[in-house]
Amino acid sequence: MTSRISKGKDNNCEKENNHFPCFIPAQRVLNLISKKWSIQLIYILKDCKRVRYKNLKKQLHRGLRIGKISDATLSSRLAELMKEGIIDREVFAEIPPKVEYYLSQKGEVLSEVITPLIDWTIKNCHEENLET
Amino acid sequence: MTSRISKGKDNNCEKENNHFPCFIPAQRVLNLISKKWSIQLIYILKDCKRVRYKNLKKQLHRGLRIGKISDATLSSRLAELMKEGIIDREVFAEIPPKVEYYLSQKGEVLSEVITPLIDWTIKNCHEENLET
Repeated sequence: MTSRISKGKDNNCEKENNHFPCFIPAQRVLNLISKKWSIQLIYILKDCKRVRYKNLKKQLHRGLRIGKISDATLSSRLAELMKEGIIDREVFAEIPPKVEYYLSQKGEVLSEVITPLIDWTIKNCHEENLET
Repeated sequence: MTSRISKGKDNNCEKENNHFPCFIPAQRVLNLISKKWSIQLIYILKDCKRVRYKNLKKQLHRGLRIGKISDATLSSRLAELMKEGIIDREVFAEIPPKVEYYLSQKGEVLSEVITPLIDWTIKNCHEENLET
């Protein structure tokens, strides 16, 4: 493997342009994690390591005061996170079938680098709303 | 001021629910910064401290290989970031009018907490694309 840096996957990404960093990869990750349930899924998988689909759904509901997560939404969010290589899954050859979801190595790093942002937004929101 | 934590602005936000953190404020910030040009604007203002509109636009173009940013998009992004209290502006009583944009105190903290994410996405994208 050489150390030569190539253009990104989409052929539109360079490390920098005129000494201005290339924000295309950051944009791609932000677009993904800004979708509803993405950060909650990363949070649960970071905490629980390996989780089955049913348990994942149950844990997402734990954080809700109202409403439900549809299977269609949850499945599509899991598929998007898998496509981006953030989560992975293992299928066990059992009857009934058993599937476990977990953070990939990339997902574990992502969960670390978004922690300061998540912690601050939670703290900041509730400080703003301190009652006088 | 008491230390009692109230519900968030939108009356839908609590610090946690059944020991699961409330991700509503994180979601709000992610929705905003995942919009095109938001992270670039925060990056420029972090670097340059105070910037006039024309210079802001010029600097955004510096990072582009192709394309242009429309005034409508740039103005609406600036307005959204101001509404959320992330950037602020000072209007000088001069002819021609002079307006300077800068990061608010909240914006400065935000620029710090998103740095690990941005740095990692840039590094990670280009590492993935190392040629063999």
